[in-house]
Formats: sequence, structure tokens, C-alpha cells
Amino acid sequence: MNCSLISVGTELLFGQIINTNTVYLSQKINLLGINVLYHNTVGDNPTRLKETLEYVLEKSELIIITGGLGPTQDDLTKEIVAEVLEEPLTIHKPSYERLEMFFKGIGKKMTDNNIKQAYLPEGSMVLQNDVGTAPGFALSKNGKIVICMPGPPREMKHMYNQYVDKYLREKSSHVIHSRMLRFFGIGESSLETELLDLISDQTDPTLATYAKEGEVSLRITSKRTNQEEAEKAVEETIDKVKNRLGTHIYSDNDEELIEVVANKLMKHHIGISSAESCTGGLFAAKLTEIPGISSVFERGFVTYSYRAKMEELDVKKETLDRYGAVSEKTAIEMVKGLKNNTNSELCLAVTGIAGPGGATEEKPVGLVYIAMAFNDEITCQEFRLRKTDRNWNRQYTVLLMLDMINKAIDKKKEM
Amino acid sequence: MNCSLISVGTELLFGQIINTNTVYLSQKINLLGINVLYHNTVGDNPTRLKETLEYVLEKSELIIITGGLGPTQDDLTKEIVAEVLEEPLTIHKPSYERLEMFFKGIGKKMTDNNIKQAYLPEGSMVLQNDVGTAPGFALSKNGKIVICMPGPPREMKHMYNQYVDKYLREKSSHVIHSRMLRFFGIGESSLETELLDLISDQTDPTLATYAKEGEVSLRITSKRTNQEEAEKAVEETIDKVKNRLGTHIYSDNDEELIEVVANKLMKHHIGISSAESCTGGLFAAKLTEIPGISSVFERGFVTYSYRAKMEELDVKKETLDRYGAVSEKTAIEMVKGLKNNTNSELCLAVTGIAGPGGATEEKPVGLVYIAMAFNDEITCQEFRLRKTDRNWNRQYTVLLMLDMINKAIDKKKEM
Repeated sequence: MNCSLISVGTELLFGQIINTNTVYLSQKINLLGINVLYHNTVGDNPTRLKETLEYVLEKSELIIITGGLGPTQDDLTKEIVAEVLEEPLTIHKPSYERLEMFFKGIGKKMTDNNIKQAYLPEGSMVLQNDVGTAPGFALSKNGKIVICMPGPPREMKHMYNQYVDKYLREKSSHVIHSRMLRFFGIGESSLETELLDLISDQTDPTLATYAKEGEVSLRITSKRTNQEEAEKAVEETIDKVKNRLGTHIYSDNDEELIEVVANKLMKHHIGISSAESCTGGLFAAKLTEIPGISSVFERGFVTYSYRAKMEELDVKKETLDRYGAVSEKTAIEMVKGLKNNTNSELCLAVTGIAGPGGATEEKPVGLVYIAMAFNDEITCQEFRLRKTDRNWNRQYTVLLMLDMINKAIDKKKEM
Repeated sequence: MNCSLISVGTELLFGQIINTNTVYLSQKINLLGINVLYHNTVGDNPTRLKETLEYVLEKSELIIITGGLGPTQDDLTKEIVAEVLEEPLTIHKPSYERLEMFFKGIGKKMTDNNIKQAYLPEGSMVLQNDVGTAPGFALSKNGKIVICMPGPPREMKHMYNQYVDKYLREKSSHVIHSRMLRFFGIGESSLETELLDLISDQTDPTLATYAKEGEVSLRITSKRTNQEEAEKAVEETIDKVKNRLGTHIYSDNDEELIEVVANKLMKHHIGISSAESCTGGLFAAKLTEIPGISSVFERGFVTYSYRAKMEELDVKKETLDRYGAVSEKTAIEMVKGLKNNTNSELCLAVTGIAGPGGATEEKPVGLVYIAMAFNDEITCQEFRLRKTDRNWNRQYTVLLMLDMINKAIDKKKEM
């Protein structure tokens, strides 16, 4: 089955909002083994929407339209679909009652505009909107399926996961199973090179890589006639990938590195404190994104100035003068001071040159030292990041810190 | 003039990357007074690209294609444009020489694949790629303009700003002038309500609002026959907006709040330190995004635990026990301790309930206290954020902190 996505909304054509719906739906639809061939965006303009719908109906069996289902005069998606597929709009009683309830609940009068939302093309399957007012629908006719969902991403995602995914799976003669592996410390192109035979030669499971801010993911998908076969095929491929690249894999279940690390810290009750120079609090901020982390995260220092490094972490003035703030010696003194000060089980200190300024001939932008006190041992690693972008360097340094923690906990647990 | 954007790349149809090019170009193109009517995305498939190009050529005078200009077999944009517009590809000597130089520079052999990048449709204006290898081009024929640029956003943006924007302005019979105002402390819908007459009734300048994570922007654009007139019209509208909503405007030059605040701190040499509980380092991380901030940012504390608040900031145990960590008293003791400890000119402390856990009946998720010591005065403000999303609450709290600093510095400078 081939699919086209149509996004409706003049605000998209103005560049006022970014089209995240197509990314989300493309990932989901491809997972079902359905090929997405086109994304089309049109404004709230009936003629252009009609022409676009007619055009893609010739090209694909499945058309998913998002946007234009709301109560205003501009919202014309249903009217156009009804016209093109020649199915009149009639009132859908349960949707009308839901709307009535909704407006009663918020103490407002339901206007005629709002009632418009309860009109749906005859013969369509109504997709209830559990988190908003406009229902969606799926209409199957003449070998084509047209699905319409609201434009707001939260409503669309909820509706897709709750109703559309199941509907599309039932239309399919096969089963799709998929798993996502997450990598750190290997680039997308190296990953592709290492797995070239599996990516190129294998028709099932298929492998697709995704890159995002220093991390790489690999989706392994199998399309079979039954679930068990699909799962088995995916597991076998995962084993092959783990054999080759196991050390770089930090999750075989699509978790982010921060989640993996935070969960291990919380699970093993490992108290943690941090002292940051170049990352300026970004490590602490990342860690504290995770709800419940207060059970293990004790405190953090952002020691940006020399004075702060000396006063808070007992870094010696001579060390700073002789070796500089960005040096192994300073990083180690920072982590020792942090350990003395907090007595947290795991202490982490970082100093580096994020750029764009601050570099010297021996100390280029991207030079970073991360020191860790854990398990009766102090270690320090030097990194030389190759980018000159300040924020990329800072963010990547946080990932390096998380990776160090992750490996250190794993190593301890193996002992 | 009407415009269609075509994005080429199978990775877009897989949802592997988000299409930021269309947002960027839509904003820029609309600014020139050109209407963007369609966004179309197709994969690296010659037939579908050809059909799409033919389709949009019927609908619009300007077509901008991004992607598919690279050296691989998959990259077919030029070939298709050459075929559809019937202009053969010929080698462009300066582009060939640039490529040769580039490969010499990185010490690699230039392959035939790479030479392909120097072939361009006859009669086209070549758009040099200053930050990558694939040049772009603009081809004007039969009253239509087709512009092709590389897909990587960094290369596309650079090429657009350096060459395409000027090219399109020259094609236009009028002048466009535009300014962006930035707001904090007012929502998009309130802003629209306050300016409804200007937004609805005024045809020039036009006003468009953009919302992003708690901040709202307003673009004011005028399209006239000469620059002076356009500028005057925009300035007059800015004055009207400032009269109504001046207190909410923090930039009339499209700067982010963090830039505005960091620049004021640096300009006036105001040393700053922070103590964060609920934001967990996010304030320090945001501030240290700005290069050069080390000249004023002295240090930061992330005092997540009771112990950290007591040991680092001298918050009294009785205060924590009696009023709780999230209270005005605690916030004020935090900022006092911070001031004593660091003696920074501006000290800021924050404590709150980011959620999803930690709430009680009197202290709901979103309750935040921000205390500031500045200009011989300690102030504390209470906020009740209405969202339950942990990260939104944290990010919005950072904006509140920045807004407090911004207003405090302005107030001091007025005195």
C-alpha cells in the first residue's frame, strides 16, 4: 500500500509553525510496511485542497489529511473530502452529544460553528477525539482510504495511537514488529559501514539509521505473516548487531541515554553530585529533567570563575596558574574537592573549552576533561571534540559524561 | 508571484529527519511579498520528482527545490530540472575548479561522482556553495523561475542569504521591510486580541504572530514602492504596538530574552550568581550558552537536597522544616546565603515544584518562588504556573528569572 500525507493550514505555508505531524506519521506509517510517497502541504483554501486531494488520490491508496477539522469558517477539510468522494456530510449523534457535554463542562454555550464539528461524511468510521473537540474519520471507497485527523499534534498523535494504528493494521495482511537500538560513541556513517551487509542485502528485517545530536539509533523492522516469526527475525538481527557493536549500544529499547543513566542511579541508589565549568549547569539540568531524580542527585556546582573553583572545590591557585583551568590536574582537583565537600558516592567534574573564544595553540576549542570519583577510584578522561559550535560542544560533553557514568555503573555491577 | 517549495529526499518520507528547510524558506519567501502556496516532499525517485515538478510548474511562477544536488546516484534533482525545462547539463568551469581545490585541500582524490556536482543546466545562474561542495542554481525560462539548493540546512540557509534573497528581491517590483518584536508575559491569543484592529483591518503593514515556548513574537511587514516609505510605515505601526503593549516587549530587534539579558549584564558589568532548586541548573545552562558570559557569571549552585541548601546557602533547618523547601522564606534565605557566599552584584535563587510529583494541597505543581538580591534590595515573587509538564515548568521558570533580571536592570538604569 502507498500513502500520501496532506497537511492543511496556511500557518504552515507562512512558516509560523513547524510541521511535526508529517515526521510523526511518516515514522508510524512506514513501520506498518506502508510506503509514504508524498507529503503535501496546502493552505486553508478549498480549491487548492481539492486539487491536491484529487492529485494524490490518483497516486496512492491511502491518504492521511491532518488539519482543517476545527469549528471556524477556514476549516474545510471535511467539506472537500465529502465533495471529492461524493459522500454527503450528516450529523453524527454521539459526536454531537460529546460536544454538548464538553461545552456544558466548561460552562459555555455551544455555537453553530461548533456543531459543524459533529458533521461527518456518510459511511465513514468516526475517530473519537479524546483530547480535543474535533472528531476525525476514516472513509474507505473505491479501493482508496482517506483518513482525516485534527492538526494540533497532541490531538493527532492521541487519535493515531488510539484508533488509526489499529485500523491500518487490520487493513494489512501481515504483521509488523520493530525494535530500536540506541548507540553512543559511533557516528551514523560508521554504523552504516559496520552493518552494510545487513542494511543492503537483507530484505527482512530491514534496518534504518536515525541520527540526532551525537546519538545514533537503529530501527530493526520485520514484516511477516505472524507475530512470532517477526519477533524472532528481529531478535536474530539484534544479536548480530550486538555481536559487532555491543559496546556502543546503551539501549535496546529506544530509551535516551539520560533515561538509562538516571534509572541506573535511582535503581542502585547511587548518590551523585556534579561540578561543571564548560557545560555551565547543562549536566545538572539534563539530569534533573528526570522526575524522581531528587532521590539521588545531591547537588551541583557551576564553577565558572577561578574563584568559584578555589572556594567551592578547593582547587589550588597554583594548579590553575600553572596548568590552566582546562587541564587534567584541575579536573582531578575539582572532583576531589567535590567528593570532600559532598561525600556523594559518584562525583563528576568537567572543564573544557566550549568556544568560540578561549582557545590557545595547545588548547583548542573542544578540549574537554571529565574527572570521576566512583568506587574508590578517581579517573580522568581527555576528549578533543572536533566542532567549533559552542552549544554542540556543551551538549556533546554532557553525553560523554552520561556515557562515562553508564559504563562505570555497568563495570561495577559486573564485578 | 506565487511559489511552491519542493523538498527532495527519501529520508524525509521515512520521518528520519524533520523538514526545517520549508519553515525557513516559507518565512523568508513570505517576507518578500511572495505567496507560498504549496510544500511538496518527494523521495529520491526520478519519476515522482518529474511529475511533481510538472504539477507545480502549472500552479506557480517560482519553484524552489531543496535536496538531491549531491554526488551520489540518488541525487537527481538537476537531471530532472534539466529534462523538464529542456536545458542540457554542461560543465561549469568555476564550480569544477572549486571542487578540485576542495578535494586538494582535504587531500582526497576527486571521483567522477564528485565531478557530477559541477554540471549545471545551461543558461542558469550558478549559486556558489560557500560551506559545502554542491553548487545550486537559478533557472528562469518561459516566465517561470526554478531555484535549486542543497538539502543540508546549513548549506541551504547560507546560499539563500548570500545569493537567493538578493536575486528574488531584484525580480520584485516593490520593496519589503520587516521588523520583529518579541514579547514575554502575554499569550499569543491575548496579543492578537489587543491588536485585533491592526491585524484584521490593516492591509499594510501586515502583522503576524509566532508563538514559541512561552514567548510570542510579532512580525510587522510593509511592502511599498520604496524603502523609505516601507520603513516609515513599519515604524509607525511599531509605535502603535508599543503604546498598547510596551511593558511586554523585551526586544524590537528579534533577539531572544537570554541574549537581551546577557548583553545587559555584560554591558553594565553586573556580576551574577545563581542558586537553583526546581530548575536544576537550567538557568545557569541557559546563561552560559552565551559566549563571553564568563566575564560576569561568577558561579551557580544546584541545591537539590535539603542538606545542599543548608550547607551551601545557609538556609536554616527550621525554615525548611516549618515552611518547606518551596516557600518564600526559603527562597529569600537561599538568595541571602548566595549573596553572602559570592558577593555577586546580582544574586538569584529559585525554588518550586516542577512536577509531576511533589505537590500537596496547598502547594500545587507549578508553584515557584524566585528571589533576587540586587541594588541593595531583596525581592521575592511567587508564580503559579498552570501546566503540569515538568520540563515546560522548568523552562518557563528560567524565562521568568530572565524577565525579572531584565526589568530590574532597566529599572536601575532609569533611576
